[in-house]
Amino acid sequence: MKPVNVGIIGLGTVGGGTVRLIQNHHDDYLSSYGIDLVIKKACARSEKHAVELGLDGDTFTTDWHDVVLDPSIDIVVELIGGDHPATEIAELAFAHKKHVVTANKALLAHDMGRLAGLARKNGMQLKCEAAAAGGIPIVKALENSFAGNSIQTIAGIVNGTTNYMLTRMELENLTFDEVLTDAQRLGYAEADPTADVDGWDAANKMAILASIGFNTRVTLQDVSCVEGIRSLEPIDIKYAHDLGYRVKLLGVARKLADGLDVRVHPAMVEIHHQLASVDGVFNAVYVVGDAVGETMFTGAGAGAFPTASAVVGDILDLAAPIAAELELLPEPEPFERVMDICSIDNLIDRYYIRISLEDKPGMLSKVTSIFAEHEVSLATVSQPASERGAQAQVIVVTHSAQEAHVRKACEAITNLDGVHKEPVVIRVENTKVWKSASL
Amino acid sequence: MKPVNVGIIGLGTVGGGTVRLIQNHHDDYLSSYGIDLVIKKACARSEKHAVELGLDGDTFTTDWHDVVLDPSIDIVVELIGGDHPATEIAELAFAHKKHVVTANKALLAHDMGRLAGLARKNGMQLKCEAAAAGGIPIVKALENSFAGNSIQTIAGIVNGTTNYMLTRMELENLTFDEVLTDAQRLGYAEADPTADVDGWDAANKMAILASIGFNTRVTLQDVSCVEGIRSLEPIDIKYAHDLGYRVKLLGVARKLADGLDVRVHPAMVEIHHQLASVDGVFNAVYVVGDAVGETMFTGAGAGAFPTASAVVGDILDLAAPIAAELELLPEPEPFERVMDICSIDNLIDRYYIRISLEDKPGMLSKVTSIFAEHEVSLATVSQPASERGAQAQVIVVTHSAQEAHVRKACEAITNLDGVHKEPVVIRVENTKVWKSASL
Repeated sequence: MKPVNVGIIGLGTVGGGTVRLIQNHHDDYLSSYGIDLVIKKACARSEKHAVELGLDGDTFTTDWHDVVLDPSIDIVVELIGGDHPATEIAELAFAHKKHVVTANKALLAHDMGRLAGLARKNGMQLKCEAAAAGGIPIVKALENSFAGNSIQTIAGIVNGTTNYMLTRMELENLTFDEVLTDAQRLGYAEADPTADVDGWDAANKMAILASIGFNTRVTLQDVSCVEGIRSLEPIDIKYAHDLGYRVKLLGVARKLADGLDVRVHPAMVEIHHQLASVDGVFNAVYVVGDAVGETMFTGAGAGAFPTASAVVGDILDLAAPIAAELELLPEPEPFERVMDICSIDNLIDRYYIRISLEDKPGMLSKVTSIFAEHEVSLATVSQPASERGAQAQVIVVTHSAQEAHVRKACEAITNLDGVHKEPVVIRVENTKVWKSASL
Repeated sequence: MKPVNVGIIGLGTVGGGTVRLIQNHHDDYLSSYGIDLVIKKACARSEKHAVELGLDGDTFTTDWHDVVLDPSIDIVVELIGGDHPATEIAELAFAHKKHVVTANKALLAHDMGRLAGLARKNGMQLKCEAAAAGGIPIVKALENSFAGNSIQTIAGIVNGTTNYMLTRMELENLTFDEVLTDAQRLGYAEADPTADVDGWDAANKMAILASIGFNTRVTLQDVSCVEGIRSLEPIDIKYAHDLGYRVKLLGVARKLADGLDVRVHPAMVEIHHQLASVDGVFNAVYVVGDAVGETMFTGAGAGAFPTASAVVGDILDLAAPIAAELELLPEPEPFERVMDICSIDNLIDRYYIRISLEDKPGMLSKVTSIFAEHEVSLATVSQPASERGAQAQVIVVTHSAQEAHVRKACEAITNLDGVHKEPVVIRVENTKVWKSASL
């Protein structure tokens, strides 16, 4: 058996976790799988982390070219994030006949198709389990275990920060701002929380999952709706609860007759649905295949060791044939196929809409007549007693309606005299249609 | 790309589902993965199923040797169950350089080590995703995705029949016999329900999962305790509920300092634990790895198409390199390692014990003094009001106690004058210790 040489670029949270995991289990990998996994090179901007990890001077470098150009290295592990030099690292690694393992969500969400093509052209593989849902082995499941299925739906809670925040908003009746401050203090949210709370991180992950699950190329730009949780208030969560729902930041990707429906937004999920019970920083991915039916995977979507678990799983997958000196399959390239993407305008859903307005006569009838004009039929209309000093609010829940009509109605309402901000809209997800198709 | 020829032995529920799945998706496999999957031979005792499946006379045979000895066949898919001729099919297939995919739980639970060794010796693979938890891709997760981890705990609800029955007993306050009759009528339980309701099916699956998760050889004989749900009554489930638990037929496999703790029995699981919310015919496998932490997978553990999903996932995994004419890795053989198995006698747990006895003076003090004599400390003792005509009952819940002491106490109680049957024992599972170890 030949030793398998790995070069790791990036020694931050995930890179450090990956190094520690390999160091800790080197002998297990050797005895259990016959794989002698060697960290041949490790690259970071400062030597500080390398010293902490006990990586010696021969292993450490500040120049990623030393990793990618080292002829002894079999697998390049890119854990720096961002577009550059991550793109160049992958390109050069493939050109030099090295496989690439990456946890880089943003890079893959816009460039996976091209990079997978490059890998294939060079007979190499691009592996990205850690980029989709941290420690949850959903990429492998979609690529291999469910390969016999036609996947119908992938729905996920794929951002731990927002799920943690929504869980605390619900349990402790706190506002978004209160929870955010505390989440930042505890390290569950970053100083700039935009990527998490505005839905971009989840949208990147859904683009990756949709690409793999539906054997097509889906980019961040294809995600037809990216909305975060910033405008949500405790009243929304409480109201959802009274209706029998919980509010989750949901990623949905469905194969429909006219294309893929891919979107990320807060949604009400029935309290008895499996996804509704996923709390705190946990992530979950729910998958419906035409043969396997409904399945769900839960686990940690972030964190040093859970993410390292996914990275090292990918490394060992590549390492087994390398150690046995067998030729590897090149990267498959279903991503050159491009399916149509459904416009969010055509979505049919029910909608919870909360409108803040001045408490003056005739407002309610103006609001309800706008919905009627836009063919949006209302199931319930309520005016919760406003707290002292707070603006009056009207909450409506629609019957099934078309997204485009709801949007136009909301625009018209925003333009009303006495309404000073856009209504808060939460889709009431119809999970029944997620599992409509079967063999 | 070379076509990949498959021979299927057994055209019952799973075999029929597998054939239909391949027929239905042949063109998808070709366009998405470049795999031209051909059902070259199909074997069953009667031609009836083959005709229904549209398999022609050249494909169909009643002699399994025609499948295993066909030089054009790459993968033999054994879906007949039982020990013979399944053993001979696998042996001969490996000898003739064919990979084997099987859903045969009982066979693998006692012979996986030897068969995997035979596969390895011949450079072939033995794949068994469908044998562990039906459509749930847990074998792949343990073998590959979590390969970087040291697995600490695998706990599962891996028998759909009993989970369905327990769910109905709870929701409808029905007895075991009432639910069994109905489950048999609905096809959720077999005419002879022994394998399911007495825990043997779950024990087979736990032996397979423990072997794969802990890279060792665990057989059905190593499962230190196999108990089913036959003796459970609605009162047990109701009492559990009042204590904050649900009763599940649980398979547990844990790596402890002195060996593997592997067992199957009814257990009380805290109502907020992920496993407690798995209802009906659904299965779930909960895994703790030292890197990934807690994860859980849910899905259908049985049924034609969910099981076929796992079978075809295995077939396509083997087929990809075969189609590309690449050499495959031989079966890894961690199963030649044998870890010690912990005796159930040493288990430390809390115990719910229900004793049926004659309603005569002094019985309660006799019972409690027996527990005291055997060093079993009681947390609660109660005598529920007995229904008219029913025997009196005493229910105790112990503090942490050693299994051997509890067993001896129960034996002594069974021997008491006025006690006519063995107490019903349900372990109150301490799920906190499932996740004690981490990196």
